[in-house]
Amino acid sequence: MAITVAQLAQQLGGQVVGEADSLIDGVATLAHALPGQLSFLANAKYQHQLAETRAGAVLVRESEAASCPVTAIIVNDPYLSYAKAVAYLYPEHRESGAIHPRATVDESASIDPSAWVGANVVVEAGARIGRGVQISPGCVIGRNVEIGVDTRLYANVSLYAEVKIGERCLLHSGAVIGSDGFGFANENGHWLKIQQIGRVIVGDDVEIGANCAIDSGAIGDTIIEEGVKLDNLIQIAHNVRIGAHTAIAGHSAVAGSSVIGKHCAIGGAVGIVGHLEICDNVTITAMSLVSKSISEPGVYSSGLPVEENREWNKRVARLGQLGKLNNRLRQLEKLKR
Amino acid sequence: MAITVAQLAQQLGGQVVGEADSLIDGVATLAHALPGQLSFLANAKYQHQLAETRAGAVLVRESEAASCPVTAIIVNDPYLSYAKAVAYLYPEHRESGAIHPRATVDESASIDPSAWVGANVVVEAGARIGRGVQISPGCVIGRNVEIGVDTRLYANVSLYAEVKIGERCLLHSGAVIGSDGFGFANENGHWLKIQQIGRVIVGDDVEIGANCAIDSGAIGDTIIEEGVKLDNLIQIAHNVRIGAHTAIAGHSAVAGSSVIGKHCAIGGAVGIVGHLEICDNVTITAMSLVSKSISEPGVYSSGLPVEENREWNKRVARLGQLGKLNNRLRQLEKLKR
Amino acid sequence: MAITVAQLAQQLGGQVVGEADSLIDGVATLAHALPGQLSFLANAKYQHQLAETRAGAVLVRESEAASCPVTAIIVNDPYLSYAKAVAYLYPEHRESGAIHPRATVDESASIDPSAWVGANVVVEAGARIGRGVQISPGCVIGRNVEIGVDTRLYANVSLYAEVKIGERCLLHSGAVIGSDGFGFANENGHWLKIQQIGRVIVGDDVEIGANCAIDSGAIGDTIIEEGVKLDNLIQIAHNVRIGAHTAIAGHSAVAGSSVIGKHCAIGGAVGIVGHLEICDNVTITAMSLVSKSISEPGVYSSGLPVEENREWNKRVARLGQLGKLNNRLRQLEKLKR
Repeated sequence: MAITVAQLAQQLGGQVVGEADSLIDGVATLAHALPGQLSFLANAKYQHQLAETRAGAVLVRESEAASCPVTAIIVNDPYLSYAKAVAYLYPEHRESGAIHPRATVDESASIDPSAWVGANVVVEAGARIGRGVQISPGCVIGRNVEIGVDTRLYANVSLYAEVKIGERCLLHSGAVIGSDGFGFANENGHWLKIQQIGRVIVGDDVEIGANCAIDSGAIGDTIIEEGVKLDNLIQIAHNVRIGAHTAIAGHSAVAGSSVIGKHCAIGGAVGIVGHLEICDNVTITAMSLVSKSISEPGVYSSGLPVEENREWNKRVARLGQLGKLNNRLRQLEKLKR
Repeated sequence: MAITVAQLAQQLGGQVVGEADSLIDGVATLAHALPGQLSFLANAKYQHQLAETRAGAVLVRESEAASCPVTAIIVNDPYLSYAKAVAYLYPEHRESGAIHPRATVDESASIDPSAWVGANVVVEAGARIGRGVQISPGCVIGRNVEIGVDTRLYANVSLYAEVKIGERCLLHSGAVIGSDGFGFANENGHWLKIQQIGRVIVGDDVEIGANCAIDSGAIGDTIIEEGVKLDNLIQIAHNVRIGAHTAIAGHSAVAGSSVIGKHCAIGGAVGIVGHLEICDNVTITAMSLVSKSISEPGVYSSGLPVEENREWNKRVARLGQLGKLNNRLRQLEKLKR
Repeated sequence: MAITVAQLAQQLGGQVVGEADSLIDGVATLAHALPGQLSFLANAKYQHQLAETRAGAVLVRESEAASCPVTAIIVNDPYLSYAKAVAYLYPEHRESGAIHPRATVDESASIDPSAWVGANVVVEAGARIGRGVQISPGCVIGRNVEIGVDTRLYANVSLYAEVKIGERCLLHSGAVIGSDGFGFANENGHWLKIQQIGRVIVGDDVEIGANCAIDSGAIGDTIIEEGVKLDNLIQIAHNVRIGAHTAIAGHSAVAGSSVIGKHCAIGGAVGIVGHLEICDNVTITAMSLVSKSISEPGVYSSGLPVEENREWNKRVARLGQLGKLNNRLRQLEKLKR
């Protein structure tokens, strides 16, 4: 795709300062962009790169336009405008509607003619695949699964029976949706499985990262609301509900029946224990453990940053001696009185 | 499936208080159950829902029977009885014995005629698949693998050569069993691979969650004993042994050669370093790090619960100042003498 | 494979003390080895097992040769020599070059005749598969992927379009390479996807564990340099660079754009936040959180070891009271003056 700076600015609602007629056919970082490529300045950290850039055009805020040595496109939010520009310049590769001869589709499944079903895909009885859906090779679509319009599954995704996926979702390779929740009753020291009879319901515009695992509800459903974004290798246990437009970074885990609000931002490798409620607009920083409900919006943490190992070991030891230290202090206080 | 309350009570060894003849055909929570559905009260937390329930019958302890507004079935352990009832009311979907024409089975493999082998399954040379086994689409069964009676593999499970799986096991999608242990010798700064020549041996009645990874032993085997339950995304390194009836929650990792006892309960996202021994009946709470052997049954923890971020940063800083604080205290103590 | 002790010693550059003519056909631990099997003593922890061993020969350092009750092969580094011996005695199983009739290969893909492409493998347009490559069943090789000489993919690996894999790499089952980086711009509370247009470039001699997920770069590439070893279930985010010969243990996660040096050793379940630089020769111990750049080689930690739960809860409470404790100390110090 190629487009003039003027056309691009018009699409983005921006204002050109410089050569409106030059052509843009790709994007790159400020440091690497060549003439013909678009770049952007969103993070002040990269401001020093602006002066040196050779980009064909740069998306900037109004305040930065004067410092831009090449053509500038002034926009309110350069990162957001970049998102729109890159989507335009790099249209997603989509296969045209067809069922690959090596796909195995149950005769009771219904597949929209505009959907693409790749090689070695298995679609089981009663599944319904919507308009424009793209199912890459190796995916397994269980009984009665529903997949909404324009959703895309990358290779080797597994959907268990009865899972519902919304429209315009993106499921990355290795994601597993609808596996059994982890529920057992104990009978004389042996674990007796609790059949998990709920489903997983995924709303519209959800992205689910590579090798995520989302379990079915025990009774009732596990629910991922619209606009949720899950990074890779995330575990969502049975009967969890993730509120709309919440984003969760890689390697996090949410235990059973916890309810996370809307517009939350959960950092990487966060653990959230079961049966909690987290309200809307909560941010949790990386590697924190949430073991109580959170009812106030805000930023929460419990990650400990690394120290040089010897120093760290001292800190751990001192933490263990706090009881004694407190006693010593109390002793001195008594003497004082 | 439908069954009278009386029949259900008889199967569970319970006693009916109320309408013994009404029909039950499903289960639901106390809050959502309708007439015709069974519910249960196991957790005191939900006791307030009992008064309002519209369930057809409720599994309760004797002490709760009087507060039950609908038909009660008195049992010793309502959760355990629920497990049995739901298994009866929702019989698992099983395919009848057949090898799908799109399965690829080596001629030297032996597959019991009652086993089901789905589309796109690959069974390599010398594998032995037992009676009633269910292998969902996309699974790959390596050379000489053995799978015991009535075990079920969900879609896209990968079993490396020589893995042995017991009877009545459940392996969820994306699970990988028998990948190489992580072993390297260092030769002038380069890592030289140690061929991993051991196997993975999985006992009877084991459940392995979605996207788990269990490595082969380096020399000798990695062993998962009978009745072990592994949640999703768990890493079990080479030569680990997990004792019978131990349950491990999602996202935990056990490093090489560690031995975990029987009847342990390991919380989510726990890390257990290598070459340790953990005795029987140990509970580890979520996000703890086990870096020494544990020889006494009990509950162990090292997870830190989140605080509001500003407060948390202060705590981290204060932890770093404990050395100074101790010195100041010592100074005062000296003056005292 | 069988070989005399003398031949083995010659291959390893070692010196035989004892029976040079006896045959060795396998390896085992000191405790379990039988005559005919090779063992080794690398870790002083196992020294007491040397006296009792029945091994056919033992790889030892010169200082241990006298204590060896059976034939010894004296070498400089017994573990390294073991690595070489086991590779010789247990040659890897490799399939001979062929494309399985149930593989689906795009006509524009190029596959070296010596490569093996297993059943249900899909090779998309423009992919190039090098000499001796082994691709196990169920792998999906995206458009324009390149795979270098003698690399092996185990079952059910997914490579997204444009990924480049070097020579002699090992990719374990369930690994996903090239999934979209986690990048979104926020537009009025909704997340707008940033198309990820970079690739993943994997160098030579890299091992990638089961169910790892390595994301494509946003702009520019994610790079795994030569000789890197990744254990299972590791998350590598977009635009990360992992330096040559760095090893990362299972369940670790590296967030976007971080650069890790060469010859680092990252423990299990470590979290490294985004946009950091870690210099060469850094060791991070298990379950640590790296939230700042590291510019000095050394060992770094922030993992907290478990304590008995009641004691742990006290420590957590005391950590929260450090502010008060400091105030009390200050009070006493004031009185002192």
